Amino acid sequence: MEKITSAANSAVRNLCLLREKARERKKQNAFVTEGIRIFLDTPEEAIERVFVSESLAERLGEEPEPALTSKLNAHRAVILADSLFARAADTDTPQGVLCVTKRPSWKREDFFTSEKPLLLALENLQDPGNIGTIFRTAEAAGVSGILLSKGTVDVTSPKAVRATMSAVFRVKFLYTDNLAEDLCDWKKRGIRLYAAHLDRSVPYDAPDYRGGSAFLIGNEGNGLTRETTALADQKIRIPMEGQIESLNAAMSAGILMYEAYRQRRHPKQS
Amino acid sequence: MEKITSAANSAVRNLCLLREKARERKKQNAFVTEGIRIFLDTPEEAIERVFVSESLAERLGEEPEPALTSKLNAHRAVILADSLFARAADTDTPQGVLCVTKRPSWKREDFFTSEKPLLLALENLQDPGNIGTIFRTAEAAGVSGILLSKGTVDVTSPKAVRATMSAVFRVKFLYTDNLAEDLCDWKKRGIRLYAAHLDRSVPYDAPDYRGGSAFLIGNEGNGLTRETTALADQKIRIPMEGQIESLNAAMSAGILMYEAYRQRRHPKQS
Repeated sequence: MEKITSAANSAVRNLCLLREKARERKKQNAFVTEGIRIFLDTPEEAIERVFVSESLAERLGEEPEPALTSKLNAHRAVILADSLFARAADTDTPQGVLCVTKRPSWKREDFFTSEKPLLLALENLQDPGNIGTIFRTAEAAGVSGILLSKGTVDVTSPKAVRATMSAVFRVKFLYTDNLAEDLCDWKKRGIRLYAAHLDRSVPYDAPDYRGGSAFLIGNEGNGLTRETTALADQKIRIPMEGQIESLNAAMSAGILMYEAYRQRRHPKQS
Repeated sequence: MEKITSAANSAVRNLCLLREKARERKKQNAFVTEGIRIFLDTPEEAIERVFVSESLAERLGEEPEPALTSKLNAHRAVILADSLFARAADTDTPQGVLCVTKRPSWKREDFFTSEKPLLLALENLQDPGNIGTIFRTAEAAGVSGILLSKGTVDVTSPKAVRATMSAVFRVKFLYTDNLAEDLCDWKKRGIRLYAAHLDRSVPYDAPDYRGGSAFLIGNEGNGLTRETTALADQKIRIPMEGQIESLNAAMSAGILMYEAYRQRRHPKQS
């Protein structure tokens, strides 16, 4: 395998750029995944370039792991000296694989391949861990697509990608410059929009989500904007005991998605 | 107000100790909260010592915030030079209040003040953010008490406390040296134990949680131990679409707690 030992190497500099700059990820239409499991989960056609740490390469030389070794070889993984690998990696104790990956590209139509889509729209969420957890939970709850406002954190940032547990490759998603326009289009397609809100509103388990439905989730601190809330067919709230002011944004999204999924798993009552 | 400018000061050293060492927090039966909101939420009788950063003290000198200013004065807050404050604080951009707080102490009996308790037992959870989020969600779902195995991360660690959003003061909790013994005691009291599991088991929304119920939640990577699982009356699983292997531990706990709370909010059917 080819081996890189100089920090001045352009591939290493690019790994750092892709890790740090959302703009660069957008420009190159690529991002970096870190870790063995996510590399094994990455679709073959999405893989652009793979780097393996010197110490992992040595370990695999002694004790090959068939699936990993063959996928590394198939993509002509380049060995990085451990010190360079540590510099390019985002975690403190990297597992030894960094993979430059094509950003998935979905179209608006892709959200509507099922008859009764379950959709999510995220407005200006800021925490990468929250976004990642939402993707992971959305895949599990059978969500058809996630729309993200331009102001929402990049789901291909290293921390968000890790929190998705590979769902970033499997959940359809789209960033939009004009959330309102997309939501109006959803309404025209017969999707009912439910705004997660703290105001006086209907408890989240009252509506019937078995038809085409979308949950609108707002920023961690400020919730949904007034403009977006106004587009909703219904405001829903998650009831809370005690003195808690709100749930964590990912938790709220998860509870809503699982309520919809719970209803959809059961035959229609009356 | 008294002012501290030397890093050698024993109070400053103790703040750092309490931040870093779970053992020290246990020995002193105290922990440190950081931030303005949580300080305002802290019960008066739990406050042992309060520190305010020099720059916050100056700002409050010019523009007092009545609730904050009077609580700081009532507890004779000590001013810390900004450089010292930054050293003692856990966050990168501290808000300017550090409070040494008595660790809440609950008794086993406290979990059983309601007729049909909803309980949680956490076995060896490791992520402070998960523990904090579970506490926050538990308060909102009306949970009566949280039992934590000895091997579970300390909920009074700085990151966990922040994630609780002050629920650490309001949710009853107890660390146990012998999880099995406590769970057997719960069973004797008529609590049904439900083990969150990935195995072939009942979907989580099948059981009736309106009687005394407890959810057993296991470690992020390994789930519940066999010993603890064996004590459960029923194994339950959260159904999942796609290729996701498991949900985040806090998310699983939240979905289970909210299913129980949902059932409890509705009158008995049939």
